[in-house]
Amino acid sequence: MSIITLTTDFGLKDHFVGALKGKIISEYPEVQIIDISHDVDLFNISEASYIINASYAAFPKKTVHIIGVDSERTYESKHIAVQWNDHYFICADNGILSILTQKIVPQKMVEINIHDRLTEGSAAMDVFVKVGCHLAKGGALSVIGKEIEQIKVVNELQAVAASDLNSIKGYVVYIDHYGNCVTNISRKMFADIGKNRSFEIKFGTKNIKKIHAGYSDFKVSEKYTLKDYEGEKLALFNEAGFLEIAIYKSNPQTVGSAKSLLGLKYRDVVSVVFD
Amino acid sequence: MSIITLTTDFGLKDHFVGALKGKIISEYPEVQIIDISHDVDLFNISEASYIINASYAAFPKKTVHIIGVDSERTYESKHIAVQWNDHYFICADNGILSILTQKIVPQKMVEINIHDRLTEGSAAMDVFVKVGCHLAKGGALSVIGKEIEQIKVVNELQAVAASDLNSIKGYVVYIDHYGNCVTNISRKMFADIGKNRSFEIKFGTKNIKKIHAGYSDFKVSEKYTLKDYEGEKLALFNEAGFLEIAIYKSNPQTVGSAKSLLGLKYRDVVSVVFD
Amino acid sequence: MSIITLTTDFGLKDHFVGALKGKIISEYPEVQIIDISHDVDLFNISEASYIINASYAAFPKKTVHIIGVDSERTYESKHIAVQWNDHYFICADNGILSILTQKIVPQKMVEINIHDRLTEGSAAMDVFVKVGCHLAKGGALSVIGKEIEQIKVVNELQAVAASDLNSIKGYVVYIDHYGNCVTNISRKMFADIGKNRSFEIKFGTKNIKKIHAGYSDFKVSEKYTLKDYEGEKLALFNEAGFLEIAIYKSNPQTVGSAKSLLGLKYRDVVSVVFD
Repeated sequence: MSIITLTTDFGLKDHFVGALKGKIISEYPEVQIIDISHDVDLFNISEASYIINASYAAFPKKTVHIIGVDSERTYESKHIAVQWNDHYFICADNGILSILTQKIVPQKMVEINIHDRLTEGSAAMDVFVKVGCHLAKGGALSVIGKEIEQIKVVNELQAVAASDLNSIKGYVVYIDHYGNCVTNISRKMFADIGKNRSFEIKFGTKNIKKIHAGYSDFKVSEKYTLKDYEGEKLALFNEAGFLEIAIYKSNPQTVGSAKSLLGLKYRDVVSVVFD
Repeated sequence: MSIITLTTDFGLKDHFVGALKGKIISEYPEVQIIDISHDVDLFNISEASYIINASYAAFPKKTVHIIGVDSERTYESKHIAVQWNDHYFICADNGILSILTQKIVPQKMVEINIHDRLTEGSAAMDVFVKVGCHLAKGGALSVIGKEIEQIKVVNELQAVAASDLNSIKGYVVYIDHYGNCVTNISRKMFADIGKNRSFEIKFGTKNIKKIHAGYSDFKVSEKYTLKDYEGEKLALFNEAGFLEIAIYKSNPQTVGSAKSLLGLKYRDVVSVVFD
Repeated sequence: MSIITLTTDFGLKDHFVGALKGKIISEYPEVQIIDISHDVDLFNISEASYIINASYAAFPKKTVHIIGVDSERTYESKHIAVQWNDHYFICADNGILSILTQKIVPQKMVEINIHDRLTEGSAAMDVFVKVGCHLAKGGALSVIGKEIEQIKVVNELQAVAASDLNSIKGYVVYIDHYGNCVTNISRKMFADIGKNRSFEIKFGTKNIKKIHAGYSDFKVSEKYTLKDYEGEKLALFNEAGFLEIAIYKSNPQTVGSAKSLLGLKYRDVVSVVFD
């Protein structure tokens, strides 16, 4: 079985996603297509990066990930295909893979060079479909591109440890459907710097001194049930391994969320101070 | 062929649904995954119940339904798997299946007990994926849980007949994409109590004396075409078998809907008075 | 392999789309179901037409397209199935296929007549599922309907050339996820009337004198990079072959779009004047 995943900013109202799938299925009828997201904020490289990084590991090795965000080929953003950690990624060279390639060195990177083999007027997605189906069928990268040594690196906001190793300064990099605010402080960094010391997580004028094992990880007793904790703020490491500030049983449409209740915004600072 | 359906409040922007599908497909590549909804109102058990009840019958026997709404395992909500009417349901024991189990007694219910067989830090969805794929492959409930006699019952607003059997009092329990207002008065209850008597459906200061066979079931003539009825209120039994108050050719974004034009809200009373 | 595509105004929150897929898969487990859109504006025939016309060509011949927009069967809108350009379309006879049939004469058209073979209370979608699976399996149109000579034609706003052949007057017929405004002036009409003359595209008080090969088709130099052109208006022929007014790197939620920045609305006039 071969899998192609799709991550785009195409939205679901227009025919774009359906047409993309039609082209893939026409080229490779047996492939499994799985949507990761089509609601990436328009042209938002950083949001697409977060989503790709948080989801690729749920798929088997050899999965092909097509990323249709800011994908038009320009003089400064060539089309690339990258083999990384035994997965394949197809996108424009706009920095979208930095989050991955800064962690692990890619196995192989090519600049796609099949454009003149396609009919004139072919769009980025026509190219990505050809390349994606080729790779999903087990084809080699060298057939569809020429090897390159480097791809663009975008140095987004990074979480950094203080020089005395007593604190970490991170940022809100993603706000999810529940209004929970995900930072770029990883579980690993927290453990490496914190070395099991007690700590305080600070943002705005608020702080949190505990990391939850799960959203419902509150102390219940005869006096207090979980219901009594609804609306409480908490911090935990999410499934993608990043520190997240959340509200228990949040709802951005009704009772509010970490975003609305705590006033946290994209790019706001969240710090951890260790004792 | 095996089918797993998904009903969650995860939304479609984040990677949650894509990652869930990736995990399922990794575990059981041949399974068919079908989305029922990922836009359930956050943590809204009652809305999820309505959706599950209205859709399960469209799927073949043995379909496995994973429900990811308020699914974190807590001391008061264990993870359960239920065989009911030859379908399987996997969810937290938070009352979400009451709507089904009050109609038909489940064939078998287990409390899922495979949590310590999974890697540490596994989330609710990792558990549901394991159990779902096991059941979809034809595995037994007893392998993944220990039998239980009872699950939580949530007594949501119920439609009730008056003691003189001359009226029914029901409630708006769901408002759909068209702004149509679905009550909890079933076609069966209406028939059983009404016994073919004439009737008046009342809500707020409005009433309706006819039940439509379909949305377009208006009397057309040389004088009046269907176009002339656009915007008219009507009542009908929807596909799920519940009495619904609708507006002909409604559009919540433009001309209005039963919700906006008739002022009906979630939990509002709708009565039927028989002659 | 057989494919059924779905284009509806059902939305994604309710169970409607999931239940529809459950019915299809119950009837024909091996079929591939691909969503084109479920967010067509409610009852909007013209929008559904645009989407169908812009996407069908991405699918292989023999694909079956089910259109669930304004699909209730009435005295004035029968259910029809149409073989056109080697694709199949199933819908109500409400004019939705005019955009196709005005370009190419259908191969065969039938009024569906299987309604009395279904269980009472069957909805439009039950009919479409039966017919769709029948056709996807290679069944004949004559088995599920009686041949008809004509279907309803809706004469939506049409682009027209001036009698002196020196200009074209078209309209905005679709606004996409990026806020780009698509007109009904086709690449073919532009070429036929323009005959390579220079031109001015006019809308409101604005004009554009160039047609871009792609969204990023700006002149870059040592002085100006693509970044400097963000927010610029441009015109191009989109993948569906229609003249589109766009903003480079638009975002309706943040920096604005052709719709918001240029004040273009659905049905606004866009003209091309040739020298």
